[in-house]
Amino acid sequence: MGFKYAKRMENIKASEIRELLKLTQRPEIISFAGGLPAPELFPVDDFRKVSDKVLAEKGRIALQYGPTEGYNPLREKIASRMTKVGVKADFNDILIISGSQQGLDFTGKIFLDKDDIVLCESPSYLGAINAFKAYQPKFIEVPTDDNGMKMNELEEIIINNDKIKFIYVIPDFQNPSGRTWSLERRKKLLELSEKYNIPIVEDNPYGELRYDGKIPPAIKGLDTKGNVIFLGTFSKIFSPGIRLGWVCASEEALNKYILVKQGADLQASTISQLQLNQYIEEYSLDEHVDKIKNIYRRRRDLMIDTMKKEFPQDVKFTIPEGGLFTWVELPEHVNTRELAKKAIDNNVAFVPGGSFYPNAGNENAFRLNYSNMDEERIVKGIKILAKVIEEALQCEKSM
Amino acid sequence: MGFKYAKRMENIKASEIRELLKLTQRPEIISFAGGLPAPELFPVDDFRKVSDKVLAEKGRIALQYGPTEGYNPLREKIASRMTKVGVKADFNDILIISGSQQGLDFTGKIFLDKDDIVLCESPSYLGAINAFKAYQPKFIEVPTDDNGMKMNELEEIIINNDKIKFIYVIPDFQNPSGRTWSLERRKKLLELSEKYNIPIVEDNPYGELRYDGKIPPAIKGLDTKGNVIFLGTFSKIFSPGIRLGWVCASEEALNKYILVKQGADLQASTISQLQLNQYIEEYSLDEHVDKIKNIYRRRRDLMIDTMKKEFPQDVKFTIPEGGLFTWVELPEHVNTRELAKKAIDNNVAFVPGGSFYPNAGNENAFRLNYSNMDEERIVKGIKILAKVIEEALQCEKSM
Repeated sequence: MGFKYAKRMENIKASEIRELLKLTQRPEIISFAGGLPAPELFPVDDFRKVSDKVLAEKGRIALQYGPTEGYNPLREKIASRMTKVGVKADFNDILIISGSQQGLDFTGKIFLDKDDIVLCESPSYLGAINAFKAYQPKFIEVPTDDNGMKMNELEEIIINNDKIKFIYVIPDFQNPSGRTWSLERRKKLLELSEKYNIPIVEDNPYGELRYDGKIPPAIKGLDTKGNVIFLGTFSKIFSPGIRLGWVCASEEALNKYILVKQGADLQASTISQLQLNQYIEEYSLDEHVDKIKNIYRRRRDLMIDTMKKEFPQDVKFTIPEGGLFTWVELPEHVNTRELAKKAIDNNVAFVPGGSFYPNAGNENAFRLNYSNMDEERIVKGIKILAKVIEEALQCEKSM
Repeated sequence: MGFKYAKRMENIKASEIRELLKLTQRPEIISFAGGLPAPELFPVDDFRKVSDKVLAEKGRIALQYGPTEGYNPLREKIASRMTKVGVKADFNDILIISGSQQGLDFTGKIFLDKDDIVLCESPSYLGAINAFKAYQPKFIEVPTDDNGMKMNELEEIIINNDKIKFIYVIPDFQNPSGRTWSLERRKKLLELSEKYNIPIVEDNPYGELRYDGKIPPAIKGLDTKGNVIFLGTFSKIFSPGIRLGWVCASEEALNKYILVKQGADLQASTISQLQLNQYIEEYSLDEHVDKIKNIYRRRRDLMIDTMKKEFPQDVKFTIPEGGLFTWVELPEHVNTRELAKKAIDNNVAFVPGGSFYPNAGNENAFRLNYSNMDEERIVKGIKILAKVIEEALQCEKSM
């Protein structure tokens, strides 16, 4: 025992969220920590019907190995669904994977040698940071504002650094900040990607969950040269428990993902693919998404309104147009890892912001999720949180 | 386009088996190529009942995120099932993964830096070779005979090489050779593992599918010091389409697998875990395995008997005591990649042996699977193959 592990293992740590989620399974905890969908919205009865039908009619296919690329009828449905975010795709452009998290891991595997550079938003999704870290890259965090990455700063960074392998972005209702990129920035990012031949990895888990205004085109939808690799998932619009997501990319890049999928786990679950395909055939996923949006919109409104009322004045937060998260910034001297402990003592959980910065620092923000708690708990939890924050601010002042 | 990919991508090629499998989907092909279970044996009706029950009673849990480690009731059942191969385990020793192929990928990720050394049997499972190759190791193939790796040669290799990170073995009904390790060799391997502190990765996808004699203890069952990492799967004893396998290892090593699972795809499918758990609770998986064994035993017997009758005398093949494969060796001058093309022209498919040697060479053997074809097709296919081989041998002689 005490084996010699690969050097990369020094970089891989338990995700703070997953560890927090364990705590938050205690029923008394009001959790704004995870990114969990509301389970009461899962289409359990409809899924039960289609599951039964698939096993009755295609049981032997459902339980057997299938092709690495995925089940073709589902690939077709995903391709045509991509028009919602402005992407014209064909089933051949789609690889079905086990949730979009797997697409992040594969992206690292395909592009990153040790010490290569990943450009990402600052802050960025901690699950992506952790997935990439296994391939020992360096991260450069690109400064962002309410419209996305700042383009002058981005170009400056590109000019001054070799070995940039890709630019990772979440343009819609970003995790953790809740912000959405403007159309202008999307176009400019694509322009820079083409100018410097650096692929864009567009992670879009929440794009369809827009509560106000119109869905802007995905960057992939503006892409005419195959520079964008798009990651999608059914986790937030259908169910995370079935573990189905997809990669949409042009042939050359997609072939790399297919090869890597083969070595990593051969294929996504055949039975889950057949069942989801059957669901989309028999029911309206659009209507289901509308149902989710109506509930989440109210939860977002309630959380934002309660924060406006209850939070001290020098606390800032984003007002997301969709997705699952809002991002709270406290005065710089407040450490939210400490604050999280006090909040948990008061039965409220959130994720401290520090983990969303790959190069550390920025300990004064935190992420709140509003999709998983009912309205009563949202109000109660935010009120408790307001008190915890107030105490922390006063405590700092009195010191 | 024409992105800069990671160097590892130069090593990752499409698995010959998966490419062959595409061809073999043509209904006229008699395929001995894949490692597919017989679909007519899948317990479709029983699984249909438990699936429905899970969605009726635990639908919201089944469709939600779950813990990375896996669903505890299923982890418990797997742990207690490990006694079948002589392993005493606790649910805490089990991580549920998406098929044991994922365990191979994780093993590479956890242990291998570039140019580290993997020891494996010669030949070895090509899916493992491909999974490890993504982490840029070197392979040393350890000579094997009918009882497993040759221990003097193994120790010699260990003494003469630094950077050996693990020893990868498939001790039961090895893929591709169909051979099974003797108890003596298992003990000796463990002894060397402890002496030189090199972990053993024991891949055991077929261990329960023994048609003659008694199941010997897994090497993990002899392991008192946590030196063995055991990979298991439900693909061959239940269904590959649900993509569920497991890692059984001691705490230190298992924690690495859990961390890597988190970054790779968060968790195995919640719904599949609940359904399989329910199946094991309500039905007898043992009885199901017995049913499979009875059919596969007859298919093996029939394939072996037909080969004895039909194959030319200078063709050798193994007689497996279980599992899915037999291994056919032709005179050294015969190239089985060429032979495979001729066989496909005659509507019979197999996997040429060359791919099972990570350092290439040895093109004169091939692997036959007997689990996926019915008895009539087995006899017909072997007869065709006998003719194709005969022609190849005569052709060589006449040249």
